[in-house]
Amino acid sequence: MSEFSNLIDFIKGTIALGQISGSLSWDQETMMASGSIEQRSQWMGHLQTTIHERKIDPRISDWLNAIDPQTLNQDDAAQVKHISRDFNRSVRIPADLASAIAITTSRSQLIWAQSRSDENFKSFVPVLSEVVNLKRREAEALSSSNLYDALLNDFEPGMTTKKLDKIFKKMRPRLISVRDKALGGAPAPRIEGLFSKDLQLSLSNKIADLFGYDFNRGRLDLAVHPFSSGSGDDVRITTRVMENDPFNCLYSTIHEVGHATYEQNINHDYSLTPLGAGVSMGVHESQSRMYENQIGRSKAFTQFLFHEMLDIFGEFGIKSADEFYRCVNAVKKGYIRTEADEIQYNLHIMLRYELEQALINGSLEVKDLEVAWNDMFKRDFGYAVDRPSNGVLQDVHWSVGLFGYFPTYSLGNIYAGCLEKAMRSELPDLNLEYSKGNVKRATTWLRENLQMYGGLRDPEQTISFATGEMPNEEPLLNYLDKKFNDLI
Amino acid sequence: MSEFSNLIDFIKGTIALGQISGSLSWDQETMMASGSIEQRSQWMGHLQTTIHERKIDPRISDWLNAIDPQTLNQDDAAQVKHISRDFNRSVRIPADLASAIAITTSRSQLIWAQSRSDENFKSFVPVLSEVVNLKRREAEALSSSNLYDALLNDFEPGMTTKKLDKIFKKMRPRLISVRDKALGGAPAPRIEGLFSKDLQLSLSNKIADLFGYDFNRGRLDLAVHPFSSGSGDDVRITTRVMENDPFNCLYSTIHEVGHATYEQNINHDYSLTPLGAGVSMGVHESQSRMYENQIGRSKAFTQFLFHEMLDIFGEFGIKSADEFYRCVNAVKKGYIRTEADEIQYNLHIMLRYELEQALINGSLEVKDLEVAWNDMFKRDFGYAVDRPSNGVLQDVHWSVGLFGYFPTYSLGNIYAGCLEKAMRSELPDLNLEYSKGNVKRATTWLRENLQMYGGLRDPEQTISFATGEMPNEEPLLNYLDKKFNDLI
Repeated sequence: MSEFSNLIDFIKGTIALGQISGSLSWDQETMMASGSIEQRSQWMGHLQTTIHERKIDPRISDWLNAIDPQTLNQDDAAQVKHISRDFNRSVRIPADLASAIAITTSRSQLIWAQSRSDENFKSFVPVLSEVVNLKRREAEALSSSNLYDALLNDFEPGMTTKKLDKIFKKMRPRLISVRDKALGGAPAPRIEGLFSKDLQLSLSNKIADLFGYDFNRGRLDLAVHPFSSGSGDDVRITTRVMENDPFNCLYSTIHEVGHATYEQNINHDYSLTPLGAGVSMGVHESQSRMYENQIGRSKAFTQFLFHEMLDIFGEFGIKSADEFYRCVNAVKKGYIRTEADEIQYNLHIMLRYELEQALINGSLEVKDLEVAWNDMFKRDFGYAVDRPSNGVLQDVHWSVGLFGYFPTYSLGNIYAGCLEKAMRSELPDLNLEYSKGNVKRATTWLRENLQMYGGLRDPEQTISFATGEMPNEEPLLNYLDKKFNDLI
Repeated sequence: MSEFSNLIDFIKGTIALGQISGSLSWDQETMMASGSIEQRSQWMGHLQTTIHERKIDPRISDWLNAIDPQTLNQDDAAQVKHISRDFNRSVRIPADLASAIAITTSRSQLIWAQSRSDENFKSFVPVLSEVVNLKRREAEALSSSNLYDALLNDFEPGMTTKKLDKIFKKMRPRLISVRDKALGGAPAPRIEGLFSKDLQLSLSNKIADLFGYDFNRGRLDLAVHPFSSGSGDDVRITTRVMENDPFNCLYSTIHEVGHATYEQNINHDYSLTPLGAGVSMGVHESQSRMYENQIGRSKAFTQFLFHEMLDIFGEFGIKSADEFYRCVNAVKKGYIRTEADEIQYNLHIMLRYELEQALINGSLEVKDLEVAWNDMFKRDFGYAVDRPSNGVLQDVHWSVGLFGYFPTYSLGNIYAGCLEKAMRSELPDLNLEYSKGNVKRATTWLRENLQMYGGLRDPEQTISFATGEMPNEEPLLNYLDKKFNDLI
């Protein structure tokens, strides 16, 4: 066996154990009884220890040093690049720091939930300060230059604050302009009545199938917070049901189908290797956003969906496909990121991006975070936050140590804009297809131009390979301008 | 940290990974989509490799050698005994043999299913011969004396062919005598109609709860072959539903509840240690058989169950509690072990025990197994096997390398006989309780006298601690005599 074969076989074992960990998390959120949680935490602790020992195994560096890069083909060279980056990252973080982060964020998440329920940010300050300090130490261990960039790179390799600042600076005025115009228009029509759980789930199953999700290698279940889980041939999705709002279930499903088909469609040869998973959070989010928004909320597809829903649920207060289109694209005032429309979502992200940078770089202390959030929200949205659960306490991310993650949501939107532009120019008849519910042509295009390649190329190259141009914010902004100008 | 602490912490990690493997098997049988099987096999392969590496880790022997047995309390001494036995077993089996067994039995199981479906034993002969040879090699690696005992000990530590031969020799004539009497009586009444899946499952949930199964630390799902899975705070059961036979679902559930409550009721301090699981297959089966037969098929409990079923399903062709009792205890001619009554079940086991001993000890060749089976069946049951799926191909066990496993089913019945005798003498009012559906007093007795101790004592000692006498076949035979003499 060559050094490369030894290396990749060892890595496959580590990735298999990581996928097993993901499978246990899925089980915990969907199937496990509540009384099993303590034992499950112990399983996870032992499994993570085993995985960590493998990630820093010194044989990895021996194999890497012994490999002659000249002998590798494109795939294998990309594997080595991933393995090398992961190994260097893992060995840089001291075991006691990794352990402190795991223990503190586990506690912090519980305190966050309590503080949010108590509407009391102060009670969250001490533990969040600990988390921020630990993440700063992690960033220092990873990089000697920009601390925030070190964390950001974990989710979006190659992305920097410098690039993001430039993009967001251009986006902000145009987003505000289209948002203000949309808010000034007539209020969107609203749906009426109750929508049975069984019918919502049956429609979700049908739509997931239409979008190309392969139920032969996955399943759809209920969870409190919808997610997609797994890679390759076992990728499972979850959704939730609110009886007065079928769109919650439906668009959660479509969103998760975007994540899931990306994983399902990756080249089977990459199975259990570093190339066998979505390349970054941003590119992952580009798929889920594209399925949900550019396709799922398009005028053509909503025509189809409107008639499907009428067939299944009967009358629900919306009189025409046009009203329906306006309904699922309503732009409204609101505090909550996850409920925001395609425009304002990005403003929510920019706010978090500014604040978490300041926390990590040390220019903002956790004790001042609530005031800073509220000031910034007023500045960006024009009205005051009414309570912490609608403001600084609304997201779980910081409590679990996810700093540098939020911007990948907007990057996903930006990448989706680029992909939509390229796909539409190659497939001019998509609207006709969408209006018949045939969205598979779009998802096939995504599979052939992006999804199948998994982690082969860096995030930026992944998008530029698919679209023919470097990722930039213009296509998204043009798409939003056009869509919401038409809608008003 | 002491050597013992280091040892037990390491072992906990291995046991956690083993429990994770069990959890993945549960998922595979209940939740996983069929297209995920190849990836799942790879996960399991990597996980088993990791577990095996830990099981033969030389540090275990260093720690064991450094521990002074005098310093250990009863619990810790029992832990060391288990760890030492497991380690010695693991290091004796060469890695290439373990791997050959895993690969061959995986293939063999598929061939067995095909041969059974084709009713063709000959097509199963080559691979089963390979399996027998590999298991003989395994037995040789484990022991220099009786090969079959070496395999038997894996499932029932301390049990020997010598002991079993003596027990079975005494049992056979008495079983045949009571069987023949029962077969000579009037045929049992039969149920009529279809029983809806939802109602069967709802009744199963209720009965599982009555028997003390803790749904807060487990769940009930459907599977092709019912099983119980897990230890400690995450123990899940499965059942199956046949619309024309509610007893299949119901008694499968009660049987699995017996296995599951044993695991759930073990002393919480033993969690993730060798003491934190049922001590042997025989003792495990004693719990499931006791719940299913001595309690679940008792005259008193079936009175309660009859009225429950009438309430839930309406009339189903059985006119009285007495008829119902005869119905669930029907003794009939039949080929299939898993469908056999309490008497004949043991005759099915003895037949397999004789044959598998001969295979392992080399006095019978696989190519002659079908003829040997059919001859022996005629001898024991008085009529000829009509086809292989009703004979030598009916059980999966041999195809997956389970030799030495079958006798633990009868040992379970024998142990259950001892436990029933001891419990009845301590709790004389049980029938009154059972007839009101209150079976928890019995399961509490089992928890306090046996289940909570997990692997603390050897199987024989586990039974003698609970009953005050060494396990023997007399109580079971007396119980069967009395029960079926009354029934005729």
